[in-house]
Amino acid sequence: MLTIVGIGPGKKEGMTLEAYQALEQSDCIVGYTVYVELVRELFPDKEYYTTPMTKEVERCQWAIAQARAGLNIAMVCSGDSGVYGMAGLICELAGDAMAKDMPELAILPGVTAACSGAAILGAPLTHDFAVISLSDRLTPWETIKRRLQAAVMGDFVICLYNPASKGRPDYLQKACDILLEAGMADDRVCGVARHIGREGQSREVMTLRQLHDFPADMFTTVYIGNSMTRRYGDRMVTPRGYQKDVKI
Amino acid sequence: MLTIVGIGPGKKEGMTLEAYQALEQSDCIVGYTVYVELVRELFPDKEYYTTPMTKEVERCQWAIAQARAGLNIAMVCSGDSGVYGMAGLICELAGDAMAKDMPELAILPGVTAACSGAAILGAPLTHDFAVISLSDRLTPWETIKRRLQAAVMGDFVICLYNPASKGRPDYLQKACDILLEAGMADDRVCGVARHIGREGQSREVMTLRQLHDFPADMFTTVYIGNSMTRRYGDRMVTPRGYQKDVKI
Repeated sequence: MLTIVGIGPGKKEGMTLEAYQALEQSDCIVGYTVYVELVRELFPDKEYYTTPMTKEVERCQWAIAQARAGLNIAMVCSGDSGVYGMAGLICELAGDAMAKDMPELAILPGVTAACSGAAILGAPLTHDFAVISLSDRLTPWETIKRRLQAAVMGDFVICLYNPASKGRPDYLQKACDILLEAGMADDRVCGVARHIGREGQSREVMTLRQLHDFPADMFTTVYIGNSMTRRYGDRMVTPRGYQKDVKI
Repeated sequence: MLTIVGIGPGKKEGMTLEAYQALEQSDCIVGYTVYVELVRELFPDKEYYTTPMTKEVERCQWAIAQARAGLNIAMVCSGDSGVYGMAGLICELAGDAMAKDMPELAILPGVTAACSGAAILGAPLTHDFAVISLSDRLTPWETIKRRLQAAVMGDFVICLYNPASKGRPDYLQKACDILLEAGMADDRVCGVARHIGREGQSREVMTLRQLHDFPADMFTTVYIGNSMTRRYGDRMVTPRGYQKDVKI
């Protein structure tokens, strides 16, 4: 049995009950080194198999092989198991064999960073939104650029994953330039959530111009409001449209 | 204290531990009639306050007033508390007063239907995606149309909420027509997840042409793949790009 488990931000409180139970019942927990450390505290006596970034294919192949050999394998993903997670690669590797000699496969969803970060900032995602990763390790930058432009055209709220890293320190800046060139106003309400659900969690609401110069990293999730998004103190809210001027 | 709780699809197993605890500790659980029924089975002895659809403003005003009066109120939302949920309206109603005389406000995220439905279908959301509601109760249809067109332009995976209802039986058909007119191929891989996490849960993978004639309802979440999305048996998978032709 192979279970792909979305663990949410990382702490036990943010996992679903079924995710926690799947980890508890597994023979071995597999994952990216950083995420496995988050669950090791909860289950110190489990067996673990970790691989670093760029070793995703090997990690998934190992997990499938072990499950075929009869072990109950839990593969952990930060946030959701599907959104930029390993569920896709597992399904691809299994391919057309999935319905035949694959071990029983279960995919357990989790709270993705778009949702957990939004809850910290207020309610930026209360209307239609687009989720875009700025990492060009697996996606051509031209594709990312085209999606940013399309998101402006559609007046979507935008949630950015992987906004910057040590090797890509200026990618958020580049993305903001694309949004500005596509006609987005530089006072558009934006926000960032950092270290979601972990030590040092923080939020900050700012304009697009300020976001352009914000020092984002891999622990930052970025929100760019739509044309209706408003700032209330240190929160950002995208109205759904229930009311215009109701006051209480 | 007022806590906006995303309960996921509805069963206890799909709730986060903190969501479950917030419900357990509350004095009164507030929500839309249909969602409240999902949690009433778990906490039969709680006090409940429900309002039907179109009474969202009254429901939120009541919850804020009760929290101000000293009660510990949990307001439940299906899926996530933010994605088309009540967190936005609560923040709007509280407005600039939020930081002052508002009761303590907590927003707990949950597993939104985009993620829980994707897990049933395989891994449709493994790359950039757009979430769009087809309900025009609060959003002009022209805005929805523009977003569908922009999503095609950006080659986003598209997840549709509220694809149809008794009053809007042909909206999914209308949306598919817009996608086809915007140049999407009629054999694009699409899928639907129904009754996610509840009795009668099901999935179906099909082409855009077939989706056009699918009898969707309010219990259906719809996925339209991007140009790379593939079908494997009865699952749909959007490759992230880790590998092209690896076979195991």
